[in-house]
Amino acid sequence: MTFTAINPATGEPVGPAFPEHGPADVEAATLKAAAAFPAFRATTPEVRAAFLESVAAHIEASTDELWPTVQAETGLPLGRVQGETGRTVGQLRLFAKVVRDGAWRDVRIDPALPDRAPLPRPDLRQRAVPVGPVAVFGASNFPLAFSVAGGDTASAFAAGCPVVVKGHPAHPGTSEIVGRAISAAVAESGLPEGVFSLLQGTTHELGTALVTDPRIKAVGFTGSRGGGLALVAAAQARPVPIPVYAEMSAVNPVFLLPGALEERAGEVARGFVTSLTGSAGQLCTKPGLVFVADGAGADEFVKVASDALTDVAAGPMLTAGIAAAFDSATDRTGGTDGVTQVGAGAAPEVPVSATPRLFETTDAVLDANPNLHDEMFGPAALVVRVADPARLPELAERLEGQLTATLHLGEGDDDLARDLIGELELVAGRVLVNGWPTGVDVGHTMVHGGPFPATSAPATTSVGSRAIERFLRPVAYQDVPAALLPPELRDENPYSVPRTVDGRLEPAPTQE
Amino acid sequence: MTFTAINPATGEPVGPAFPEHGPADVEAATLKAAAAFPAFRATTPEVRAAFLESVAAHIEASTDELWPTVQAETGLPLGRVQGETGRTVGQLRLFAKVVRDGAWRDVRIDPALPDRAPLPRPDLRQRAVPVGPVAVFGASNFPLAFSVAGGDTASAFAAGCPVVVKGHPAHPGTSEIVGRAISAAVAESGLPEGVFSLLQGTTHELGTALVTDPRIKAVGFTGSRGGGLALVAAAQARPVPIPVYAEMSAVNPVFLLPGALEERAGEVARGFVTSLTGSAGQLCTKPGLVFVADGAGADEFVKVASDALTDVAAGPMLTAGIAAAFDSATDRTGGTDGVTQVGAGAAPEVPVSATPRLFETTDAVLDANPNLHDEMFGPAALVVRVADPARLPELAERLEGQLTATLHLGEGDDDLARDLIGELELVAGRVLVNGWPTGVDVGHTMVHGGPFPATSAPATTSVGSRAIERFLRPVAYQDVPAALLPPELRDENPYSVPRTVDGRLEPAPTQE
Repeated sequence: MTFTAINPATGEPVGPAFPEHGPADVEAATLKAAAAFPAFRATTPEVRAAFLESVAAHIEASTDELWPTVQAETGLPLGRVQGETGRTVGQLRLFAKVVRDGAWRDVRIDPALPDRAPLPRPDLRQRAVPVGPVAVFGASNFPLAFSVAGGDTASAFAAGCPVVVKGHPAHPGTSEIVGRAISAAVAESGLPEGVFSLLQGTTHELGTALVTDPRIKAVGFTGSRGGGLALVAAAQARPVPIPVYAEMSAVNPVFLLPGALEERAGEVARGFVTSLTGSAGQLCTKPGLVFVADGAGADEFVKVASDALTDVAAGPMLTAGIAAAFDSATDRTGGTDGVTQVGAGAAPEVPVSATPRLFETTDAVLDANPNLHDEMFGPAALVVRVADPARLPELAERLEGQLTATLHLGEGDDDLARDLIGELELVAGRVLVNGWPTGVDVGHTMVHGGPFPATSAPATTSVGSRAIERFLRPVAYQDVPAALLPPELRDENPYSVPRTVDGRLEPAPTQE
Repeated sequence: MTFTAINPATGEPVGPAFPEHGPADVEAATLKAAAAFPAFRATTPEVRAAFLESVAAHIEASTDELWPTVQAETGLPLGRVQGETGRTVGQLRLFAKVVRDGAWRDVRIDPALPDRAPLPRPDLRQRAVPVGPVAVFGASNFPLAFSVAGGDTASAFAAGCPVVVKGHPAHPGTSEIVGRAISAAVAESGLPEGVFSLLQGTTHELGTALVTDPRIKAVGFTGSRGGGLALVAAAQARPVPIPVYAEMSAVNPVFLLPGALEERAGEVARGFVTSLTGSAGQLCTKPGLVFVADGAGADEFVKVASDALTDVAAGPMLTAGIAAAFDSATDRTGGTDGVTQVGAGAAPEVPVSATPRLFETTDAVLDANPNLHDEMFGPAALVVRVADPARLPELAERLEGQLTATLHLGEGDDDLARDLIGELELVAGRVLVNGWPTGVDVGHTMVHGGPFPATSAPATTSVGSRAIERFLRPVAYQDVPAALLPPELRDENPYSVPRTVDGRLEPAPTQE
């Protein structure tokens, strides 16, 4: 059995046929991963960091082959592919820095207090250990940054976990090239081959076999709600359940407050359309639900946004399945009583495409039709006119869990904004003011996460340096002799990590 | 409907009849908790810390009434009850200190970089927000430290979460007294009443209603595997699943290495029996499975332990149900072909009691009977003679997830110990050398957790300052104006918390 990618711009097969991997391939990959785990987790910070940097360098060395392949398999424009390459290698280098810094090891030391009353205190030390082999599911909409060498893989490697990737079947050639880059880095770094494996295929059987394999200890996933929930259910039904870090879906609500609309409704509308239609709206953080304080500013916002949309020919959709789901979701929204289509772009003249669409309704209609909160993955959004802006916090409170929530503020909006932020910080992983949620900045402070159903693990982020925490677990060591302690727990601190000693934070010695 | 506690030392009812709470009481409590959440989470560190200290003071002021009630309801000796009171108020005061220190807020700031290429960086700030109202299930075996004002409650309060406790039905009078202490502290601190509610009852319906209530955002539980898994399943079946932090069961394996046995087999045996039989073995960290390098030292260990056990009359068991489960579990172990009973203590002459029992077998029998790994909750353990000590790491690897793992080492044991620790740190939350796992030290460095089925959330601890993390979630704030930022994210750092700025750790200003 084999499968072949489809070029969404031509509708034709592209690239070679790839063998469909199955349960036997899963077992072979996870056995190798488990065998590689002891050596990989024992690597020094320098070896592990250099490995991540080597992956980045090998990806950069492959762009002559990589970029045309990504474009042919996804229809994404070259600029986006180049930018995503930069983000991908940037993530790998960020995690190299994270590995060297060592704060993720969360070293805590409570020295023995033999004279403490009523009981002496033993010597207690704590560090983070990696959980074991990790399964990563590539995403269709980020063929590089959320795929084979994406954030999940980079953070799992940084934690010391071998990775078995299931590449997304929409871009197998891309996955193959990136997989070769990782394998080259594994060899170059002298690591066991099982540190990384790539599985390819189109079947649910493959994904299920991977998630239920007893050697797999955690799962990273970015994709649809249906796909994520299926993996969560499979992982929870195992004899030993494991965590699934699934980033699933969001409508990324936007709140346009009266002051902002009065000052710059047109400017906000143009920024909105850019954020809505970039990458044909196929971004997890695309703004899909816009609450607007009703009035003249709202009229102007809708008019300018509709006009701007007319000029947009969104690129091809990633897959025929995504295009069909988009049509069905937008038709359902557009067909709801009380919802009006107020703008549309042009469909590009390619086989796998979508027409950008903008709808509007009122808060009363939204109240009566909770399914209008559902995601329309692609270039579409629903504007909700709210006659009484004092209702906005209540509307925020009723939202499902979200990756992001955005406010646009102007003069006089602060009191309402304060109430809204108080609700939105309980609903979303990231709260933005006067910006747009697409374009996730990868650094130490980003949260790409949020309450269910935005993710299956609201206490975590899948982007930024804290993504490493998903693949770690704390262990305490009580009265373990120095010779048997792991290096980072020894008094000498050979890895120069920051430590909490007796409850007191000590920055890394090299930081001084 | 009412219920009454049973004194295990007399088998007779003790104390008043308590009303059975049901779904309507759950709804009333969670509505109040949700209403109290905004004000409670907005409290300053000082107010919240003083509240925790007030709870501790009110508990200490209640001991004349509290201690006799605990003893009558649990049969625990006074010294244990006094010690557990100290631990309980110590935990509350530890979390007061944690709240003031502020490291749990995990404040990160990446200032804007308007000139960064290719894209400017927005101002990004991150902090932890509390998840919302938390349900806590009291444990039978720690009527104070893991019950109404136990570690789950203290850490949830510290995080800013209102708490609804379901008291354990074995000690309703104890729960009532401690609940009054908390309510007095709530009132004294000027907090909304809904910050704390106590529900009492014996029905599964009550627990299920609490876990499935939409206003409850997380659950803390310490108890049996069956009880924990039922709560996890109920929480996962909700329209919006929530995390259940269940600490469920463990056999807490012990490994006696050849050098230790040669040097001090008798001393180790006496320490073992003390740890095995304290609190009638009804501790989560009781050592229940002892791997012994076979030989003369093993013979001495078994003989001294058996002799020591003969002198032990374990106290009453906590409940008739626990006593019956203990008899059934020990009969099953004792009835397995290849298992021999090598020692027994005396059953106390009280209605709800258990006979301490020590069994022995070989690694071959254990290999053939995986159910010999099952927990026997109470004063019983199984010694496994291992002819070839080189097999110990393999036996360690096969263990289920554990709260603790203990090694006893002597001269020449280091190489084997290193291999064993490498396995055990992947299996357990805490690894000890030359000590005993009972007597969990509450501080910054303790881990009371471990891989499934020891807990349902292996990345967390339910004891020590990191327990607060279970009730928090990170949120990023992008370009939020200073006037709208929560206090701890403002440049001025009014709460004097440690911060990570541009990836660089800054200790709290007051720590300098």
